[in-house]
Amino acid sequence: MVDNFTPDSYLYISEEEKEEEDYFDYFYDQPGSEPGTLNINPEAQPSKIILIDYDQNNAIRKVDLTPNACLPYLEKNTVSWIDVQGLGSELLLKEVGEIFNLHPLLLEDVVNVPQRPKVENHKDHLLIIGQMVRPNKEEDGFVREQVGFVLGKGYLLTFQEDQITDSFDLVRERIRTNQGKVRELGVDYLTYLLLDALIDGYFPVAEDYEQRIEAIEEQIIRNPNRKMMEELYNVRRELLALRRLIWPLQTVLNTLRRDNSGLISAEVQMYLRDCYDHALQISEIIEAYRELASSLMEVYQSSMGNRMNEIMKFLTVISTIFNPLTFIVGVYGMNFEYMPELQAKWGYFACWGIMLAISAALVSYFWRQGWFRPLDEPENKR
Amino acid sequence: MVDNFTPDSYLYISEEEKEEEDYFDYFYDQPGSEPGTLNINPEAQPSKIILIDYDQNNAIRKVDLTPNACLPYLEKNTVSWIDVQGLGSELLLKEVGEIFNLHPLLLEDVVNVPQRPKVENHKDHLLIIGQMVRPNKEEDGFVREQVGFVLGKGYLLTFQEDQITDSFDLVRERIRTNQGKVRELGVDYLTYLLLDALIDGYFPVAEDYEQRIEAIEEQIIRNPNRKMMEELYNVRRELLALRRLIWPLQTVLNTLRRDNSGLISAEVQMYLRDCYDHALQISEIIEAYRELASSLMEVYQSSMGNRMNEIMKFLTVISTIFNPLTFIVGVYGMNFEYMPELQAKWGYFACWGIMLAISAALVSYFWRQGWFRPLDEPENKR
Amino acid sequence: MVDNFTPDSYLYISEEEKEEEDYFDYFYDQPGSEPGTLNINPEAQPSKIILIDYDQNNAIRKVDLTPNACLPYLEKNTVSWIDVQGLGSELLLKEVGEIFNLHPLLLEDVVNVPQRPKVENHKDHLLIIGQMVRPNKEEDGFVREQVGFVLGKGYLLTFQEDQITDSFDLVRERIRTNQGKVRELGVDYLTYLLLDALIDGYFPVAEDYEQRIEAIEEQIIRNPNRKMMEELYNVRRELLALRRLIWPLQTVLNTLRRDNSGLISAEVQMYLRDCYDHALQISEIIEAYRELASSLMEVYQSSMGNRMNEIMKFLTVISTIFNPLTFIVGVYGMNFEYMPELQAKWGYFACWGIMLAISAALVSYFWRQGWFRPLDEPENKR
Amino acid sequence: MVDNFTPDSYLYISEEEKEEEDYFDYFYDQPGSEPGTLNINPEAQPSKIILIDYDQNNAIRKVDLTPNACLPYLEKNTVSWIDVQGLGSELLLKEVGEIFNLHPLLLEDVVNVPQRPKVENHKDHLLIIGQMVRPNKEEDGFVREQVGFVLGKGYLLTFQEDQITDSFDLVRERIRTNQGKVRELGVDYLTYLLLDALIDGYFPVAEDYEQRIEAIEEQIIRNPNRKMMEELYNVRRELLALRRLIWPLQTVLNTLRRDNSGLISAEVQMYLRDCYDHALQISEIIEAYRELASSLMEVYQSSMGNRMNEIMKFLTVISTIFNPLTFIVGVYGMNFEYMPELQAKWGYFACWGIMLAISAALVSYFWRQGWFRPLDEPENKR
Amino acid sequence: MVDNFTPDSYLYISEEEKEEEDYFDYFYDQPGSEPGTLNINPEAQPSKIILIDYDQNNAIRKVDLTPNACLPYLEKNTVSWIDVQGLGSELLLKEVGEIFNLHPLLLEDVVNVPQRPKVENHKDHLLIIGQMVRPNKEEDGFVREQVGFVLGKGYLLTFQEDQITDSFDLVRERIRTNQGKVRELGVDYLTYLLLDALIDGYFPVAEDYEQRIEAIEEQIIRNPNRKMMEELYNVRRELLALRRLIWPLQTVLNTLRRDNSGLISAEVQMYLRDCYDHALQISEIIEAYRELASSLMEVYQSSMGNRMNEIMKFLTVISTIFNPLTFIVGVYGMNFEYMPELQAKWGYFACWGIMLAISAALVSYFWRQGWFRPLDEPENKR
Repeated sequence: MVDNFTPDSYLYISEEEKEEEDYFDYFYDQPGSEPGTLNINPEAQPSKIILIDYDQNNAIRKVDLTPNACLPYLEKNTVSWIDVQGLGSELLLKEVGEIFNLHPLLLEDVVNVPQRPKVENHKDHLLIIGQMVRPNKEEDGFVREQVGFVLGKGYLLTFQEDQITDSFDLVRERIRTNQGKVRELGVDYLTYLLLDALIDGYFPVAEDYEQRIEAIEEQIIRNPNRKMMEELYNVRRELLALRRLIWPLQTVLNTLRRDNSGLISAEVQMYLRDCYDHALQISEIIEAYRELASSLMEVYQSSMGNRMNEIMKFLTVISTIFNPLTFIVGVYGMNFEYMPELQAKWGYFACWGIMLAISAALVSYFWRQGWFRPLDEPENKR
Repeated sequence: MVDNFTPDSYLYISEEEKEEEDYFDYFYDQPGSEPGTLNINPEAQPSKIILIDYDQNNAIRKVDLTPNACLPYLEKNTVSWIDVQGLGSELLLKEVGEIFNLHPLLLEDVVNVPQRPKVENHKDHLLIIGQMVRPNKEEDGFVREQVGFVLGKGYLLTFQEDQITDSFDLVRERIRTNQGKVRELGVDYLTYLLLDALIDGYFPVAEDYEQRIEAIEEQIIRNPNRKMMEELYNVRRELLALRRLIWPLQTVLNTLRRDNSGLISAEVQMYLRDCYDHALQISEIIEAYRELASSLMEVYQSSMGNRMNEIMKFLTVISTIFNPLTFIVGVYGMNFEYMPELQAKWGYFACWGIMLAISAALVSYFWRQGWFRPLDEPENKR
Repeated sequence: MVDNFTPDSYLYISEEEKEEEDYFDYFYDQPGSEPGTLNINPEAQPSKIILIDYDQNNAIRKVDLTPNACLPYLEKNTVSWIDVQGLGSELLLKEVGEIFNLHPLLLEDVVNVPQRPKVENHKDHLLIIGQMVRPNKEEDGFVREQVGFVLGKGYLLTFQEDQITDSFDLVRERIRTNQGKVRELGVDYLTYLLLDALIDGYFPVAEDYEQRIEAIEEQIIRNPNRKMMEELYNVRRELLALRRLIWPLQTVLNTLRRDNSGLISAEVQMYLRDCYDHALQISEIIEAYRELASSLMEVYQSSMGNRMNEIMKFLTVISTIFNPLTFIVGVYGMNFEYMPELQAKWGYFACWGIMLAISAALVSYFWRQGWFRPLDEPENKR
Repeated sequence: MVDNFTPDSYLYISEEEKEEEDYFDYFYDQPGSEPGTLNINPEAQPSKIILIDYDQNNAIRKVDLTPNACLPYLEKNTVSWIDVQGLGSELLLKEVGEIFNLHPLLLEDVVNVPQRPKVENHKDHLLIIGQMVRPNKEEDGFVREQVGFVLGKGYLLTFQEDQITDSFDLVRERIRTNQGKVRELGVDYLTYLLLDALIDGYFPVAEDYEQRIEAIEEQIIRNPNRKMMEELYNVRRELLALRRLIWPLQTVLNTLRRDNSGLISAEVQMYLRDCYDHALQISEIIEAYRELASSLMEVYQSSMGNRMNEIMKFLTVISTIFNPLTFIVGVYGMNFEYMPELQAKWGYFACWGIMLAISAALVSYFWRQGWFRPLDEPENKR
Repeated sequence: MVDNFTPDSYLYISEEEKEEEDYFDYFYDQPGSEPGTLNINPEAQPSKIILIDYDQNNAIRKVDLTPNACLPYLEKNTVSWIDVQGLGSELLLKEVGEIFNLHPLLLEDVVNVPQRPKVENHKDHLLIIGQMVRPNKEEDGFVREQVGFVLGKGYLLTFQEDQITDSFDLVRERIRTNQGKVRELGVDYLTYLLLDALIDGYFPVAEDYEQRIEAIEEQIIRNPNRKMMEELYNVRRELLALRRLIWPLQTVLNTLRRDNSGLISAEVQMYLRDCYDHALQISEIIEAYRELASSLMEVYQSSMGNRMNEIMKFLTVISTIFNPLTFIVGVYGMNFEYMPELQAKWGYFACWGIMLAISAALVSYFWRQGWFRPLDEPENKR
């Protein structure tokens, strides 16, 4: 029964990173089209169903089931987790919809990704839309994946956009090895565990931004340049996108921990309260980073003004020193017939003397003004 | 019966684009004028009535009816959609008002366009004011059109400012060809379908702004110039206008999905919940774009400062190199009688040597400071 | 009975504009003074009472009544509108207070202008404080006038600061000529009509600001200058003042349309709902203009930066071209005895040739950089 | 009995202004110290008790009573106002606390100043903390003083930080001379009168800021300079401090006008509603000034940019005119043996002619560009 | 019994300051890990338990107890404060969890620091998470330490991250010496005392920021430089972090003062109301400082612009004076054969005369313009 339930068998992490830039899109249909239409992305991966069915004593795992093959497990008094991975197979998804008696709009919400996170109370099941994130491994930014949960009596149906979410694997592993309380408690606890994994996935992403902001902070104060400005803009843009994902999730969790549909036990609601706290913490962190990034933009602008002042001071010093000197040598380049200084034997040297004196006086004046600090100072040290 | 109900017969899309710039106007009367006065815009198109009447078995469509001719259809046990297109005929509009027993203020709201989106509960019907948008095909920006819905028992009365809204045609087509559930469900479902088409019409408009913002983003970082600033201002201005349309619509949908007038069935309210989600998504997207546009203005300003610094550095380098050289040649242009260097045979060449040495020293100094990067760099690459 | 009720007899519009600059003041008494003290502005116009008394059949109008002379009309079963114009006569105002049994604080609120718009429920009457505006005809800005309404059973008492409000005349005219429903409905409908006229008076003022903002918009992009900045500041200041007037009015109308004092009938409350919508629209418009004005300030600052960059580029181009040339002519102005070029017959012309070549090279370089565009370009076209 | 109750006997206004800069401090104890500890400021004035006891017929006033000497008055059926002035005498304050049965925390709140304005419902009395302000007579800014009110059955106990509040004197005077309704109504009306005087004291302070902002406004547009920037910063800082005082007071009054402790009669609550309106007005005014000050900072920055542009234009004009001239004279200072122009008799004058022509052309060019306006223009007129 | 309860025995203040920079972190687990897992920081100090048990007559203190050894005290009718100091011993902490019947999530919250401040109602105890701060003694900024309170019937369990909190010692001392009411009242009063100490600890930290802001204020106006900008950024960053700690604490206290779990008596709730007021005051102060810091950034930017203007004026003055002089000496350096001035005996001196006159005219012109003020003025005085 536990035959093919081996830990390595569910590592479906796709090798290449999705190039995801459109942080701000939501799915939308052509205006006026039939509500409940499924829009299958031609690049989406073919759907497959993975069933994990367990009670305190046994746990089995079946891969690539047909929707109909799930039915016997639903009737048993066990916890059945039907995980639909990939949203590329229209027929299979519709079949799932029929078997689980899903409203066309519900099916639309889990299939036409991305949607805004939300929770909806249907008659005999709850729909939860969540957005999972993790740091983008190859470049800056993060990767997003929608997970739809349909929580019914004794079963949990999940729809995953991709199979890149390794944090669910830890839950699968806990089921397999009967760690913790997962096998003792019901399907609502399983839902909590998955939501908790989903929410906790925001922390490493947020931490990434902390590091990027700190790097910008240091650069801006040491050596403000164009790259910092771009990077700062990107950070702000991505934090804005991140906030848009976590805020509705916070509302979702707040709703769930007070849910009275009967599908979530009081005990699990206490766990969800904890999960809500985490969502709150992430929201707060992201808001704080947004404010920091905003302050940094001001610091950057002030830094630019500083640099400008330094450059202008340098130019002014140069001009102020050489303008009088050039004037003096001009004077003795004049061709007046009667210029007494010219005949004097010491004239040329006296002229040099005067010019050196003027230069020295000006240099010492600027030095005392603090204008004459070496040009590299603002760049390399402070 | 289905005689003249051909798909091509209702393509009333006006050829030329309206030039609509006054995104921020609302209609208003002269202060102190009689409430309920209809103000017919002399340029408004003459009104015509198009009736679509259907049940599960039949669907008929009549064009250019008189208001009185609608009466028999209202009494039948079918869904009657009376669509008033164009708001230019005062008499016809007043006649409609009388036949459907509309309050003068209600009639004023649907005729004196534009009004703020809202929902109002009248005794035996609901008034819904919506604003439809679509991208302006000829230039940047969007086109707005008011649609007034009066939802009564068994009938839906709509007032359209123009006939430029092609998204309603898809609904008409679905009625004609009996696609989906439209013929099975009542007039509330029809209202939902039209509202859904109206809301979904905001998505392509929002997407337009995404593209414009991205274009500005790229330009500002590569080559900031005045045009970008103007474009950015226009984008902000239009997003502000767009937000003003979608926010009250969101409230309208939130009200409708909880409406207890009895005119909207529980099933359709679930559909409206989905429609409300879409309105929420659009609001969020527009807010996000507004924030991005605001950040971009800051990026633009920093870019300008950067450019200024580059120019100043260039000027400073030029001045710093030529000031000492001009001084030196000035020195040997002086006419002192006793200047030993002048008599020396190697004097002239030594002078050149010194000047070249000074130039080389300064150039290498600025080079090491990173000041001497070629001038085209900030413009063409980075 | 309708003898002196001629349309021209109530045109009390004062000829000269009040010079009103203190948009942000409220009336206040010396701290610690007796509550309910009337403060008569010595420049205020003497008060006079105009009574309009009507039912469906008759309408009479009496000018310059004494407060006592109003009493008989109050007892009749008609609608009595007692309009107190001008707040300069303390005795008369106090007499009105006694006859209508007004609380000293209420009287203070209508007499010591300006007060914040509000609605207060007294035992047998409602107090409504409103602020009327209209565009200032002689200069930019707007003119404000307080109107206090005391709505009782069968009578409406109004206190007008001045007699500059022509929009009430249209209502008077409708009473006289028995237009619309005013003579059929009660005193609450009359109150609505006046409030509606008051609110609708904000639209032309708001439109003024739209035009001013558009003018600034065009100027700033074409030719940013100091005047625009001042004008922009004034617009922001006045919009801030306008918002302070309309926001509490919005609350007032929201309260009235839900009032349960029994003084306002359900039918009139529906009319007030419409009036509330208008207040909402005005608030929205003003907020939008405030945001636009704020964006324009940023556009202005960017424009200034742009201009600066253009000027600096011009200066840099000039310096870069003439610095080397001046150096070269300096070289051949040196007095070394042995300078082979000087003796050459072609020396002078070769020197010119070199200088022209250098100039041409620099000009073409700057041209390719796009720096050399004519100076008038940023000002006159783009 | 009314012997020493003369109007001049209660003018306790301290001569020197307190130098109060710490607008943002609240009192705080060492963390971990016993709650209810009184902290007597060593510089605080010694406390004295002034009792005013009155009914409709009589009013007596006793100065420098001991707390125990107040007891007989409390038992009489009169209104007793026990005013504790100065918070420097710990023993006396504690005795008062015992006699009036004050909770240690309440006593702490009235003695350890400043505290945040608030209202607290104790069993048989209400605690109200208010902050009184008045313009600083010697320099800019305002002076703050805490007043604690303890309102019980038949008595009012007030604790004043200093005796600088002349607005309470007007109330005392009204009691003495039996003006207005103060002697007819109870202790709650007295509390209202004092709160009203306290609130109305904010108006002159706010007006001060209006004048300062207007002065800055004019200066910034005419002649922006550093002093304006500092002044603007101070204004913003003080308005921030002022807002922090008035906002909680607004809440206090809103609570009091709905208080159901039985200590405030319905009639006085109507008076408090008026007082609440005033607090609202002050909050609004201060918010408006804060926004204006914020706009002015932007105007100032734009002004600076304008000045910079003017200076740069001047520099550019000077450089552009003299650079070619200096080049030309350099050309004819060259020592080439064969330079035909030099031998020409008219050469020198032709050279001057060419230089004048160039200068004239450049000047007229800049003139047409509008660059050449005299330098004093932006400073002295516009 | 009171043997080892000596005042010096509980001074556990760690000598070295923690270097705490990560103001914005919250603790988080690997996504998908088992809820309720304790994560022991390897650098955490080993846990030890200190028990203080007292009633009105006796107070004992035991150090380094095992969890089991606490059990007898819990059963007695005394107040038992079990203080767990240091979170480094997993076994001991788990044992405590079992003995006090703590939910795994609760234990996780007190052990896996830092967590967001909150209050949670468990069946027979309350969980309160607080964050204690104090000024960092060695450098700018503050030090944070989490304190978890578990308040049950007759006992208080606290978990302290470190032992650096000296403010709790004052409470311990009050218990030992039976000062104040602590020995008379129950465990809820003890909780209040500790929370009060925790909250009051924010005041000195806030005061630090007041001083830092004032120092920046003075510097920015006197001599704006880069260091101020950095310091300002740090202040803003730390105030943001501080706000994030105090805001949820405010909510915690607001919840506690209305708690209806029966664990907090009405009397203590009145004390908590006072404590809530303090939290409110701190929030307000921090918000005010944040606004001030934000204004200061604008002042800094304006100051920079001012400096720039001064520098540019200086450069312009220098250029404007020397450009014409250099031109004139150039003129008389020309080699035209016929230049009448050159032969004149007075030519040279006349030339000097003209040049001096021009210089004097320009200097006096700039002087009148106010441009010529000495360069040090903006830096050292004003």
